[in-house]
Amino acid sequence: MEGREARDLLERTRTAVTPALRSTVESLPGSLRRVAMYHFGWEHAGGTPAGARADDAIRPALVLATASALGGRPEAALRAAAAVELVHHCTLLHDGAIAEEATPRDRPTAWSVFGTPAAVLVGDALLALGLRLIADDGHRVSGAASARLAACVVELCAGRQADRAFEHRGPRDVSLDACLTTAMAKTGALLGCACALGALYAGARDEEVAAMDAFGREAGLAFQLIDDLIGIWGDAGHPGKPAGADLALHRKSLPVIAALGSGTPAAAELAELYRGPMGADAVARAADAVDRAGGRDWAQIHAADRMARAIDHLSRAVPDLAAAGELLALAEFVTRRSP
Amino acid sequence: MEGREARDLLERTRTAVTPALRSTVESLPGSLRRVAMYHFGWEHAGGTPAGARADDAIRPALVLATASALGGRPEAALRAAAAVELVHHCTLLHDGAIAEEATPRDRPTAWSVFGTPAAVLVGDALLALGLRLIADDGHRVSGAASARLAACVVELCAGRQADRAFEHRGPRDVSLDACLTTAMAKTGALLGCACALGALYAGARDEEVAAMDAFGREAGLAFQLIDDLIGIWGDAGHPGKPAGADLALHRKSLPVIAALGSGTPAAAELAELYRGPMGADAVARAADAVDRAGGRDWAQIHAADRMARAIDHLSRAVPDLAAAGELLALAEFVTRRSP
Repeated sequence: MEGREARDLLERTRTAVTPALRSTVESLPGSLRRVAMYHFGWEHAGGTPAGARADDAIRPALVLATASALGGRPEAALRAAAAVELVHHCTLLHDGAIAEEATPRDRPTAWSVFGTPAAVLVGDALLALGLRLIADDGHRVSGAASARLAACVVELCAGRQADRAFEHRGPRDVSLDACLTTAMAKTGALLGCACALGALYAGARDEEVAAMDAFGREAGLAFQLIDDLIGIWGDAGHPGKPAGADLALHRKSLPVIAALGSGTPAAAELAELYRGPMGADAVARAADAVDRAGGRDWAQIHAADRMARAIDHLSRAVPDLAAAGELLALAEFVTRRSP
Repeated sequence: MEGREARDLLERTRTAVTPALRSTVESLPGSLRRVAMYHFGWEHAGGTPAGARADDAIRPALVLATASALGGRPEAALRAAAAVELVHHCTLLHDGAIAEEATPRDRPTAWSVFGTPAAVLVGDALLALGLRLIADDGHRVSGAASARLAACVVELCAGRQADRAFEHRGPRDVSLDACLTTAMAKTGALLGCACALGALYAGARDEEVAAMDAFGREAGLAFQLIDDLIGIWGDAGHPGKPAGADLALHRKSLPVIAALGSGTPAAAELAELYRGPMGADAVARAADAVDRAGGRDWAQIHAADRMARAIDHLSRAVPDLAAAGELLALAEFVTRRSP
């Protein structure tokens, strides 16, 4: 039931935001536009139209649902919703290019088709377009909203930089606290910013904006925990990320770090596996070791705890939880996937 | 004389803008800050303080000089001056990373010390910080100024993307018109934007802002032409770019493209040289061929022509040319280097 409500909301969000998003991307000069149109899935690499793809749209949905929940008009926040999505896609483009990921989604990444320089330059352009969409929308809060989105970009960059630094450390040299802080910056920050922008465009008071930011951040961390579980055990509804994907790449995801810090024999076994190559057999044994070391339970309990904190923040900004129905449905949706 | 006035102005600009620039960079989270501090030359790679370096500061100087010339207070435009410099440094960081240039300035580039991912992420953060500096400065024009700077970023990206596309074409497959358009986007746009921001912060009318933008663009193109001449024949005052540097890299700079299109025997000779490896001997012969094919004369005459257009635009925004003394001195300075 909740799943259906969230899916309907995501679908309505796509319908509402895509025209602004697409016309912004189409405003790019030719050579940049072609790369961006491919990246968003609106064109094939050769420039012919591609069938629409159902992106998750969770960030713009949070902007619009927050604006509604706080008594604002979602239409006033449409540009902010598109702006958040443009920033998100800048991070996808740049992350793909710098990690040289070939196919994190359903088809080759933009950098692998058009080259790293094009991916970097188009990402820069999307970032500028996102900030521009808000900067001159003529709304009373546009300055504050634009500054907040820019500050969020800095936090996203810091989180991703910290995440990359972890890759070069031994599996036992990354603390769970550092890992949680990084996840908050890398994933929570933009979800929090999406909610804060929705609140700003609804004319909310500072403490409501702060509470919605905290709601988005905590929900974002829960989302990351579930995503990390999917990276180990997969999810039938998430075919882009097969079971074991994160383990095969030696990723120091949250359940792995929690398991490694458990002091159990399974933790020692996991650390040993992380030192070697990760074939199919090692992946299966590592997943089992994470489970036995308590990493899976910890992540599920911690995700539930973060979600409880999120709802606590939400209830401060929106005391009538009936008005917060859409936000609750979204939060539940992204944190109730299979594993 | 003019050279001294401009040098003094650049020095005063550095004194005025560096505190805002540096405190903005120092506001970055640790891992990003270290890379940025190195990039700006304020720290060595290990994090120890480095002696101050005299960057050119031409872009912030244009912001402040324009604000003054139009009767504004330069202090009101200080954040805009720092913002333009942050955007410029984002392009330096990203261009270095995507071209894998090892030492375009006096020491190893940031990407070669800290890696491409760090350079991309720190560049993103500088871009966001630049747009943020303007977005929430509380000034009446901050929305318009922020939107203009963001639009300029898109143009810079398009210009750099077009420039890179030229690299993959044969030397005779790049037209002089396309090359001029690219130079305008890649170099002229940010100089024009710097002047336009100075005008906005001085409370100038739309047509004055447009005239100052056009002044900066034309002066920027003249600057690019002189820079291209230096890339072939060097400049005693510009030790970072030795004579022949652009030729050795097979760059399709403006004098080269003009020479190739001249229909002279020297053009055919140059095209032939560009098809082969570029040792010291080939570089010397190519420079000579550009000269004999008229590329050097064309670039000098065209730079003078662009400077005349620039001054024409300037006189529309600042009819009393005495008030425009600093801007004229800056424009002359950047286009009166040796070759």
